[in-house]
Amino acid sequence: MELKENERIDDLEYKGLKIIQNREGFCFGVDSVLLSDYAKKIKKNAKVIDIGTGTGIISLLLCKKTELSKIYGIEVQEDVAEMASRSAKLNNLQDKFEIINTNIKDILNFLEPHKYDVIVTNPPYKKVNTGVKSLDKKQLISRHEVECTLEDVIEKSSILLKDLGEFYMVHRAERLVDIMCLLRKYKMEPKDIRFVHSKINEKPSLILVRAVRGAKEFLKIDVPLVIYKEDGEYTEEILQIYDKKK
Amino acid sequence: MELKENERIDDLEYKGLKIIQNREGFCFGVDSVLLSDYAKKIKKNAKVIDIGTGTGIISLLLCKKTELSKIYGIEVQEDVAEMASRSAKLNNLQDKFEIINTNIKDILNFLEPHKYDVIVTNPPYKKVNTGVKSLDKKQLISRHEVECTLEDVIEKSSILLKDLGEFYMVHRAERLVDIMCLLRKYKMEPKDIRFVHSKINEKPSLILVRAVRGAKEFLKIDVPLVIYKEDGEYTEEILQIYDKKK
Repeated sequence: MELKENERIDDLEYKGLKIIQNREGFCFGVDSVLLSDYAKKIKKNAKVIDIGTGTGIISLLLCKKTELSKIYGIEVQEDVAEMASRSAKLNNLQDKFEIINTNIKDILNFLEPHKYDVIVTNPPYKKVNTGVKSLDKKQLISRHEVECTLEDVIEKSSILLKDLGEFYMVHRAERLVDIMCLLRKYKMEPKDIRFVHSKINEKPSLILVRAVRGAKEFLKIDVPLVIYKEDGEYTEEILQIYDKKK
Repeated sequence: MELKENERIDDLEYKGLKIIQNREGFCFGVDSVLLSDYAKKIKKNAKVIDIGTGTGIISLLLCKKTELSKIYGIEVQEDVAEMASRSAKLNNLQDKFEIINTNIKDILNFLEPHKYDVIVTNPPYKKVNTGVKSLDKKQLISRHEVECTLEDVIEKSSILLKDLGEFYMVHRAERLVDIMCLLRKYKMEPKDIRFVHSKINEKPSLILVRAVRGAKEFLKIDVPLVIYKEDGEYTEEILQIYDKKK
């Protein structure tokens, strides 16, 4: 497979998966790996949508971690979407993992409402005009709510999901209030939450959420997910998630 | 001071404080102690309201932990309110700690809107018709939303607080979504959250929340508050809160 300027192929060290990334662009992080693990109980033959798929990291991992039948990756940036398509082919997953190059706001031009079992999403974290802006436009779109807001993602998810369909998201812990209120506003009841802490004695940086469309109210908050032990090594759970258990 | 049947005086082991409790009724727990510690940064001369004061544990502790000028304890159960009044006198705090025997829904017959700096509350945790019912009516009212709901508490708090007034609450962690959504509905923005875990490798049981009326959106989630070490002893932080640091 030919690569474009600044591109490289990274080995995901998981069941032979490889991914094309752009050295100058937004490369996937631990958040995407955690989300794909969090969503690994997706049922056999599920039809799944990955909103803001980027280079396709979450979709690629879910193709190998679950027995889903189809995953649509929605990506607004044309060159990034094209790169994800090539990664699908590179892994011979082009029949399972299909990229749709559009803004989530226009998704109903491509997909029918209330037909999907699961949505996974690692959306842009920061509100526009907050935090230090990334220098690069691609990184800006990936990290900030330039092209779509959290409300766009949640509203469209509620329209795309079947009743009792599942919504999995990773986001910044500090957006907790927005996440809870928007999910409930769009009838996606938060059922499970897990906070991710870099170390156990530090504040949580990320939140993993599972919500179910049209479900009754009942929330479980899981034990904290901790990335590093006090000595700076990965915890056993992280090693397991990365499939590198000693 | 004379005691009624089944009553006893307990030593709070904090600055000489004592409290009257009824052996057959609802006795205070660690949640009240944690909340009074969480709210200890209440400013000098603050006018405070304690919604659902019960036997007065939180108000009594705050009279000693802070330099508040006045705290009103709202309690719907007449005999419990009367017992709290006697505890105020027992500690010579009757000028600072005044009990109002009413349902929070009727509080505006007693207190003026938008005049108070701080509200603290340890409201009933459980929705009516959920969980195992307490056997005793007093315990039922203290633990279940029989006399008032979480929404009543939050709505009335928003009316009683000054702009930028602070709202401190302890509640069950599983009510997180309700708490976040109701606070925002009534313009009390959650600013700080802390989850309380019995042990570090267990799910959080309680949530401590600080919200500010009319404030901008910005949430901090603190490090977990852990009650017991792995060996079953109290953690250093809990010993400090109980003023028993080794």
